[in-house]
Amino acid sequence: MTVDLISVDDVEAAARAIAGSVVRTTVLPAAWAPGLHLKPESLQPVGSFKLRGATNAISRLTPEQRARGVVTHSSGNHGQALAYAARVFAAPCVVVIPETAPDIKIAAVRDIGAEVVMVPPSQRVVVAQKLADERGLTLIPPYDHRDIIAGQGTVGLEILEDCPDVDVVLVPVGGGGLASGVATAIKARRPSAKVFGVEPDLAGDAHESLLRGTMVTWDVADLIRTSADGLRVPLSELTFEHLHARLDGIVTVTEAQITAATSLLVRRSRLVVEPSGAVSTAAFLFRRDQLPPGKTVAVISGGNVDPAVLAAAAAA
Amino acid sequence: MTVDLISVDDVEAAARAIAGSVVRTTVLPAAWAPGLHLKPESLQPVGSFKLRGATNAISRLTPEQRARGVVTHSSGNHGQALAYAARVFAAPCVVVIPETAPDIKIAAVRDIGAEVVMVPPSQRVVVAQKLADERGLTLIPPYDHRDIIAGQGTVGLEILEDCPDVDVVLVPVGGGGLASGVATAIKARRPSAKVFGVEPDLAGDAHESLLRGTMVTWDVADLIRTSADGLRVPLSELTFEHLHARLDGIVTVTEAQITAATSLLVRRSRLVVEPSGAVSTAAFLFRRDQLPPGKTVAVISGGNVDPAVLAAAAAA
Repeated sequence: MTVDLISVDDVEAAARAIAGSVVRTTVLPAAWAPGLHLKPESLQPVGSFKLRGATNAISRLTPEQRARGVVTHSSGNHGQALAYAARVFAAPCVVVIPETAPDIKIAAVRDIGAEVVMVPPSQRVVVAQKLADERGLTLIPPYDHRDIIAGQGTVGLEILEDCPDVDVVLVPVGGGGLASGVATAIKARRPSAKVFGVEPDLAGDAHESLLRGTMVTWDVADLIRTSADGLRVPLSELTFEHLHARLDGIVTVTEAQITAATSLLVRRSRLVVEPSGAVSTAAFLFRRDQLPPGKTVAVISGGNVDPAVLAAAAAA
Repeated sequence: MTVDLISVDDVEAAARAIAGSVVRTTVLPAAWAPGLHLKPESLQPVGSFKLRGATNAISRLTPEQRARGVVTHSSGNHGQALAYAARVFAAPCVVVIPETAPDIKIAAVRDIGAEVVMVPPSQRVVVAQKLADERGLTLIPPYDHRDIIAGQGTVGLEILEDCPDVDVVLVPVGGGGLASGVATAIKARRPSAKVFGVEPDLAGDAHESLLRGTMVTWDVADLIRTSADGLRVPLSELTFEHLHARLDGIVTVTEAQITAATSLLVRRSRLVVEPSGAVSTAAFLFRRDQLPPGKTVAVISGGNVDPAVLAAAAAA
């Protein structure tokens, strides 16, 4: 294995590159859960931490590359984030979206000003690559990219600024870009702090991968079962190597725990969060036996939640 | 009239006094409404800006006064805020609550650790004063108090730190403490910026008062009609004089506009807000003809919303 991991210097360079283009979210104490603090990335303009990586990646392109534009094949939070970041840099942006995606996600990307190309689900990656080749666009994937990981890691630097005495940081793990970046920053700048990934039981592929010491991929039909739709994606070799080297562990949470945490964050902390963003809080509340004690920061990765899910969380 | 107005020095002293005890909320751009920025005080631990004034007021008591304790007669956001601030300073706190108050509000105050005294609604003020006299508690009212106004004004200082080039600041007006403090800070430190209060049409008593140049009080039976329950209170002479001297004006919004703004803040900015907190955004969206152009910050005063109202806002 010769994967070259990013360093905290890469994360600090990313912090300088994205300053002013993303929101500097404040760590919030959760008054209803003593010891718990929240890093609410749901408050980013597009509703997730993905804006950090996307902004950093575009900032590192040459002026010529930016003028030609960027392309990606994520219909979720990364697609919106890339569209938003591209607009900041006045770069053209194409988002390839499967025909099966909900209208609301398609409209969100178009509203930001990106070009949407609809394709059959199986054609996403191929079409994005074809567009990149034909139009000279730069393909920017959602997590399998050093600049993306470095951008997401700025979340970790900000946690240390707000909470220099933090003991435990909990980070949702989907593709692993956020956890890779945050662990890189925290372990370099405060080695005594522990960084744990959190996954749904029903999408515990990274947990199993770390236990086995080798990357395990779950069947899409299994991943689809979790309500945490942002965490239904596999690791890449690049993110697996970061997590393997730098995480202190991964804990998993049940669907009922995710639902309960979502509701508490909405009702008690007044944050609109998506189930994927609530898994870290669920771990603090329900997996204390598997985590070290002390001052804990849970990263709330995003807030793009289905209206019906939010309404249920509000009423619970 | 010989009311002595607070100065920006009072607000700056308050900022030093409350630093670390309240959340330093970040101004958020509203990507869906170009030109609009949000100051989300809904993210304070008790869900409203009231924590600032309450914390400042308690910080200015002598150690002996703090040891004896504080009392108030607000069952709303100020009651929770005072209870929370008192706990920070390890001061006893009594909140006098009318027997008609919803159980959820009573439980919230008790959960924070304050003593609750239930009384018939008409007895609130009398009982609070009696408790103050008998037990040597210091009565801390929700807005008719210089230290409260100075504390709320720290919202204005933070807006200028985050947005030094702000043109317009919009502030909800209920009792007027927040608007008095914010206008004091903004007009002193950036005289070119305009500060407007915002009220519901159905609770436009401050609007009418400024037009007439004298304090007008509306009947409680009229004020009760608005959904913005935090804004159903009259000005005091102290807050009227601040608003009269320092606000550039007050605009009013309809109930339908408040509902629409609440829903947009929930769905597009992922903030759980109460109707009272949404009036400033409603003014930006629907009263542009009555407001100056330019970079605008709307203060979102709080997020303690009824679950059914939130569920409706999420689905709208």
